[in-house]
Amino acid sequence: MIRLGILGYGNLGRGIECAVRHNSDMKLVAVFTRRDPASVKVRTEGVTVYSADELAAHRDEIDVLILCGGSATDLPGQTPEAVKYYNVVDSFDTHARIPEHFENVDKAAKAAGHIGIISCGWDPGMFSIARLYGNVILPDGKDYTFWGKGVSQGHSDAIRRIKGVADARQYTIPVPAALEAVRSGSDPELTTRQKHTRECFVVAEEGADLNRIENEIKTMPNYFADYDTTVHFISMEELKRDHAGLPHGGSVIRTGSSGWDNENRHTIEYSLKLDSNPEFTTQVLVAFARAAYRMNRDGVSGCKTVLDIPPILLSNMDPADIRAHLV
Amino acid sequence: MIRLGILGYGNLGRGIECAVRHNSDMKLVAVFTRRDPASVKVRTEGVTVYSADELAAHRDEIDVLILCGGSATDLPGQTPEAVKYYNVVDSFDTHARIPEHFENVDKAAKAAGHIGIISCGWDPGMFSIARLYGNVILPDGKDYTFWGKGVSQGHSDAIRRIKGVADARQYTIPVPAALEAVRSGSDPELTTRQKHTRECFVVAEEGADLNRIENEIKTMPNYFADYDTTVHFISMEELKRDHAGLPHGGSVIRTGSSGWDNENRHTIEYSLKLDSNPEFTTQVLVAFARAAYRMNRDGVSGCKTVLDIPPILLSNMDPADIRAHLV
Repeated sequence: MIRLGILGYGNLGRGIECAVRHNSDMKLVAVFTRRDPASVKVRTEGVTVYSADELAAHRDEIDVLILCGGSATDLPGQTPEAVKYYNVVDSFDTHARIPEHFENVDKAAKAAGHIGIISCGWDPGMFSIARLYGNVILPDGKDYTFWGKGVSQGHSDAIRRIKGVADARQYTIPVPAALEAVRSGSDPELTTRQKHTRECFVVAEEGADLNRIENEIKTMPNYFADYDTTVHFISMEELKRDHAGLPHGGSVIRTGSSGWDNENRHTIEYSLKLDSNPEFTTQVLVAFARAAYRMNRDGVSGCKTVLDIPPILLSNMDPADIRAHLV
Repeated sequence: MIRLGILGYGNLGRGIECAVRHNSDMKLVAVFTRRDPASVKVRTEGVTVYSADELAAHRDEIDVLILCGGSATDLPGQTPEAVKYYNVVDSFDTHARIPEHFENVDKAAKAAGHIGIISCGWDPGMFSIARLYGNVILPDGKDYTFWGKGVSQGHSDAIRRIKGVADARQYTIPVPAALEAVRSGSDPELTTRQKHTRECFVVAEEGADLNRIENEIKTMPNYFADYDTTVHFISMEELKRDHAGLPHGGSVIRTGSSGWDNENRHTIEYSLKLDSNPEFTTQVLVAFARAAYRMNRDGVSGCKTVLDIPPILLSNMDPADIRAHLV
């Protein structure tokens, strides 16, 4: 049994707990929290809750620690710190800062003789893998990534910060005509606006100025200004009834050519349709935790991304069975 | 520069030649043929043509040998033999015999200190990778593989062996309703007949009995009897004009659940749309040849499948660039 610990018991932490139930070779043994451990009620029986302050004290109990914090402020510090004591896996998803995070984790992991697999999930994660395979098979080609239809938590949060907004949910939606043009292999050049639209469901506080809120959303730089955005004002009851889930998904498409004179065209598409973004992410995290455990047992240390991991190490099946049934 | 050799100069061999043009770190240096070397005209300048009999004699000239023979009679003997002298990559695609082929190649490869990557292509190959990732992320789920629309060379050959048939082309076509049902996540149980139809374009010899030919096709065991099959008789001119290409493709779909009580559903789909089946296969083969070269240089030997290869080793890009741009 691979003994897992988790640091942070929010959406991701609870997702890990569920994912462990689908993997018979794994066991959740400990949860580390920054809250008062006595206040955290864990769903799985037999799991000990520790304070995040005692992270260093339980090295003999845990094979892999899965970091369930956020990328903005938690993981940049947590992952390099935790890898001193444990093999770790995280879902760091700030694409622009991955090289820097990699270097920080790599240095600490090598010094400790541990392995740290960063940026596991679906983007980065499975979409990174799809992009890599697409690029190597079709070196002369173009990459396209579409997200949605799904809830963007970052964009929902951005709306919630506007004065007069009680709650909000934002859906990112790929433009069907853009998807179709890419799949046809016509290699379109697409602007940000042509690829995705944004649909917002907003609960306003009583008496708030709806026109102002709508205008602040639609003109918000980076988040909405470059998109065609629709805003619907709804009641808190409707939000809770119709928009409680965290569905997401998307497609990575690589189009490119082969042949002596590029005369043949090919389209590779990897697509996801997910009822629960955090639960899918955690199903990916536990598979990479299995690989982290095995690779470290075989003497590998340092920081790794999903692209460094031989796929077969992710599976609980016997390699001979895999060759007989999945290859 | 990675120096490649190829054994066999048919559709796949010519595809390798094209694929090398798309990979700036590779060079085709030698072609081995069972024909008279003087009779083989290679398109790339500076490539030497050797007799397949001298396979053992050119070890210092070649880093990886790509085997371009067929799975029925060539590769079972060729791959274990060639791996004695070279790192090799093949596209062995008889699924049921992969475990046996693996064992044979593994023994010879380990004895020689070489690496042999078998069953590279799209199925087996990229579809194997898609099945593996799908299974590890959604352990509670179902696998579906659809092929087509595309030309099946095995089925086309089977028709050609019927008396009175001058030439033929067979298309395998997924049933749209079946694909839709799978993508919806409804986990249908599908029979062979419900998943694919077969469409045949047949050129009959003059005076041949068309009814008999059509009946022999439709009732042929394994190949056609379990499918809804359509037969069109056309002229040789039409066959050459409308059915000269070798397009193919398909989808690997994994549907499954997550959550404490399997309450959330997910669909993962990997799909291909290919103008040229052999050229796409060879684009995959050369990427795995790069990995074979690197892994053997790092001391790895034995037989490997695509599932044993860390994706990053397939790429010619600098690892830091990959982390910055593809992860």
